[in-house]
Amino acid sequence: MSTPLTNVRSERVKTVRALSRRSVREKTGRFLAEGPQAVREVVAHHPDRVVDLYVTREAARRHTDIVSAAQAAGVHLHEVSDEVLAALCDTQAPQGLAAVCRVLTASLDDVLATGPRLLVLLTHVRDPGNAGTVIRGADAAGADAVLVSDASVDVFAPKVVRSTAGSLFHLPVVTGLSLQPTFAALRERGVRLLAADGAGTVLLPDCDLTAPHAWVMGNEAWGLDIATRDECDEVVRVPIYGKAESLNLAMAATVCLYASASAQKAAQTG
Amino acid sequence: MSTPLTNVRSERVKTVRALSRRSVREKTGRFLAEGPQAVREVVAHHPDRVVDLYVTREAARRHTDIVSAAQAAGVHLHEVSDEVLAALCDTQAPQGLAAVCRVLTASLDDVLATGPRLLVLLTHVRDPGNAGTVIRGADAAGADAVLVSDASVDVFAPKVVRSTAGSLFHLPVVTGLSLQPTFAALRERGVRLLAADGAGTVLLPDCDLTAPHAWVMGNEAWGLDIATRDECDEVVRVPIYGKAESLNLAMAATVCLYASASAQKAAQTG
Repeated sequence: MSTPLTNVRSERVKTVRALSRRSVREKTGRFLAEGPQAVREVVAHHPDRVVDLYVTREAARRHTDIVSAAQAAGVHLHEVSDEVLAALCDTQAPQGLAAVCRVLTASLDDVLATGPRLLVLLTHVRDPGNAGTVIRGADAAGADAVLVSDASVDVFAPKVVRSTAGSLFHLPVVTGLSLQPTFAALRERGVRLLAADGAGTVLLPDCDLTAPHAWVMGNEAWGLDIATRDECDEVVRVPIYGKAESLNLAMAATVCLYASASAQKAAQTG
Repeated sequence: MSTPLTNVRSERVKTVRALSRRSVREKTGRFLAEGPQAVREVVAHHPDRVVDLYVTREAARRHTDIVSAAQAAGVHLHEVSDEVLAALCDTQAPQGLAAVCRVLTASLDDVLATGPRLLVLLTHVRDPGNAGTVIRGADAAGADAVLVSDASVDVFAPKVVRSTAGSLFHLPVVTGLSLQPTFAALRERGVRLLAADGAGTVLLPDCDLTAPHAWVMGNEAWGLDIATRDECDEVVRVPIYGKAESLNLAMAATVCLYASASAQKAAQTG
């Protein structure tokens, strides 16, 4: 590594810090992965996407695995002071590491060409924590990809990236999708559309989940609109056995995705 | 209602605001429920626990159901200015309503006397959002109670109360428990102890969940310590089908609790 960067007012710092704004991310096609978990995963799975890796001296000593992997992959490494790292990041405690990355783009066609069996489609999801946690849950449940409609939060926003806990770099995430053509493309490939909504008439345990399907999840406050629900093959409700009004979006998605994964695994081995 | 309270520097405001501190909640045995969802549920399920209900004029007009129910239950209602409501609350946008409540205490003996079939026990859980979301998930899955060890976050902290989305008032929550005597009491009543931990050797889908059991959940970062795991009847792992390192605590708890609820419902009806 070269001489540490210590000037918090440099153009470089301003340019990176600006990536906390959606407009700048969309214009530059870049985003910032903050903290050891996110940085470790992007270096491991997509080193070609890492434009610059910033690390404090202490973090470089603590995370020799990440630094070695980055060096082996030919990533541009920059030692920075604690103050510069803090100035680069949106997170209050970025734990010494941040990587400027090129936005990871997957296309719906590429995803469909793989013959997906389990997908999740987010539409009008606005809360970054919920969106990130759904991506983490989809990864854990072994989903083939996460699809995100154009009316949703930007999955490269700092809080979404953090909430995915590295899962953003583990499975294809297709963004900016229009709902109608996406539904049509999924149908054509034999992927059933299952709306997950509190207004559903089919209970999750009664739903056949062995065939390929996509869980369609709506806004955290108002769910899916009627028109969207009507276009899906089934509207499925997670049963509420107690007095709770509902589950939050991330919990509902995780329960649905795990039910799908269990059903598909059982069908494979049974 | 009497004349609106408008003095943000009054002793009353200071006394209520102080409930954001754990030491004050423990000394007074009171806590604050903020926002329409929490206030509606405490008024509906435990009106005798509500000491004072503070409401802005606009919120009183918007939430006539809550105000009527409070009046019918003989709750002390106080109209306050927007500024006073903001000064009372921990939340940035409390949406016009807050209720000072007496801490709801349930005892382990009372819970065990009901013959519980599904419980969750939190130990060393520190993150308020995770703890609150587990309580919400336990309520949704129809658990009989939530047990909380003495080394965990205070469930009456503002952020926990908010994250439960009203579920704090729906099922018994037993706090301040020591782990050893609790384990012994559960065993004596025939409740199996299932540790939920990434180090588990039994996979969730392979676990028999029909008998009465308690899910024992540990700290969000390091899980359960070895001694605690060893004392449980089984150490169970939620399978990770993709590349995610783990699920977060609230997601794992919700998946486990729903697996239990499904198994127990199926056993009842089968």
